[in-house]
Amino acid sequence: MNLDADIALAHRLADAARAEILPHFRQQPETEAKEDATPVSVADRAAEEAMRRILKAEVSADGVHGEEMGLEQGRNSRLWVLDPIDGTTAFLAGRPIFATLIALVVDGFPVLGMIDQPVTGERWLGVMGQGTTFNGQPVTTRRCRELAQATIATTGPQYFSQQEGDIFMALASQTDHKRMVMGGDCYNYGCLASGHIDIVCEAGLKLHDFAALVPVVEGAGGTMSDWNGEPLHAGSDGRVLALGDPARLEDVLEAMAAVHSHDH
Amino acid sequence: MNLDADIALAHRLADAARAEILPHFRQQPETEAKEDATPVSVADRAAEEAMRRILKAEVSADGVHGEEMGLEQGRNSRLWVLDPIDGTTAFLAGRPIFATLIALVVDGFPVLGMIDQPVTGERWLGVMGQGTTFNGQPVTTRRCRELAQATIATTGPQYFSQQEGDIFMALASQTDHKRMVMGGDCYNYGCLASGHIDIVCEAGLKLHDFAALVPVVEGAGGTMSDWNGEPLHAGSDGRVLALGDPARLEDVLEAMAAVHSHDH
Repeated sequence: MNLDADIALAHRLADAARAEILPHFRQQPETEAKEDATPVSVADRAAEEAMRRILKAEVSADGVHGEEMGLEQGRNSRLWVLDPIDGTTAFLAGRPIFATLIALVVDGFPVLGMIDQPVTGERWLGVMGQGTTFNGQPVTTRRCRELAQATIATTGPQYFSQQEGDIFMALASQTDHKRMVMGGDCYNYGCLASGHIDIVCEAGLKLHDFAALVPVVEGAGGTMSDWNGEPLHAGSDGRVLALGDPARLEDVLEAMAAVHSHDH
Repeated sequence: MNLDADIALAHRLADAARAEILPHFRQQPETEAKEDATPVSVADRAAEEAMRRILKAEVSADGVHGEEMGLEQGRNSRLWVLDPIDGTTAFLAGRPIFATLIALVVDGFPVLGMIDQPVTGERWLGVMGQGTTFNGQPVTTRRCRELAQATIATTGPQYFSQQEGDIFMALASQTDHKRMVMGGDCYNYGCLASGHIDIVCEAGLKLHDFAALVPVVEGAGGTMSDWNGEPLHAGSDGRVLALGDPARLEDVLEAMAAVHSHDH
């Protein structure tokens, strides 16, 4: 599969999103509450619209699925999955670690993923068969010889149900938990791809939250799965694991399963 | 009190710390575990040493209290309080939202505070009687008309005892908790000073963690206190509140007291 044209297109999409987002950063953008009470800002909407305009002009046969404006069916097997601002709460709080997520999913499989941080100008790009780059330079995850040495990250306990929180804590307690970091949203997966974090464990993620992360993490040598170790797909339950070192997957699932079996 | 010379000195200290920290960012710096098992890196130590060298050369009569190398008594009423990297776990995880903290405490009162982020080149400076600047431009906190509209931040639940966590959650549940952000360390207080966050609530902070924050937050129009609403001082218990809008202090203490009285 030659993805050169798609890679160039993804860069233009991210550039367009940046141009819409940057003027609103730390400028108290207008916001409203979505159905689930989470905030959305004018910057989210403007960035998604800008990306959709480009896709419509350049690849009108492709489908588009965006966080803010839903699914527009295409006439082929290609689907662009967009999250204009992943981490809107972080964006609104003035933190430069939210990002725009762009994925190209072909036949249900994410073959290209981009994590773009507009403020710091950081861009991770993962492409099937071509590895992952950070601002154009190849990056790889780091090895993790044992769970007790792992740095774990999650965006916050408020995104877990009680049971999910128990499972997370069962895992976190087996890691180097003095290095645990909270917050971060998709930025954590970029840091994992670059070899600074070993595990990200989250729940409640939607397709637009994780589709772009898979090529970035796996192209850098890591692995992503649901909490049962199964590959992520459009129908996944939103419980997501990312590991820098795939060799630790069994240890991670075992640590989490201790709570699973206890609760059921 | 003319603090011009001290302001210039604080800038030089932060510049020196930046020069030591930046080469180690995302370069897997050597680390070790401190007595409390939290990590410290060669960058923490090098940055504190660089700042101490400057202080010794320029203001040798002043005392110095640094996170990594402890207290060096001075021969006057002035004390420089240094935290070379506040948020070492975030630094090690590759996040550009840790910071160097520099405070000048005179007669026990912090009169100058600086929060410096080396990677993004962001610097908040608060000076008694002169207000707060961000990269040289004046900033102010935002008003918050009711607690239900407040954005609250804290570095993570892992820094709370069970009881402290209950008190935090009692407060957080009264805020716009869909906007709650975790992680961030001292960077949260900078974002509060700039008007993007309304409340920061933390526990376990030491003098080197909060001394620099007080002039930054209060110079921008906010207020800082312990969890009883009392001013922070060297002997405070480490439970820290920062509010962008001092008018909300009573509401905040009331929300937290509901749990206090229940537990005792």
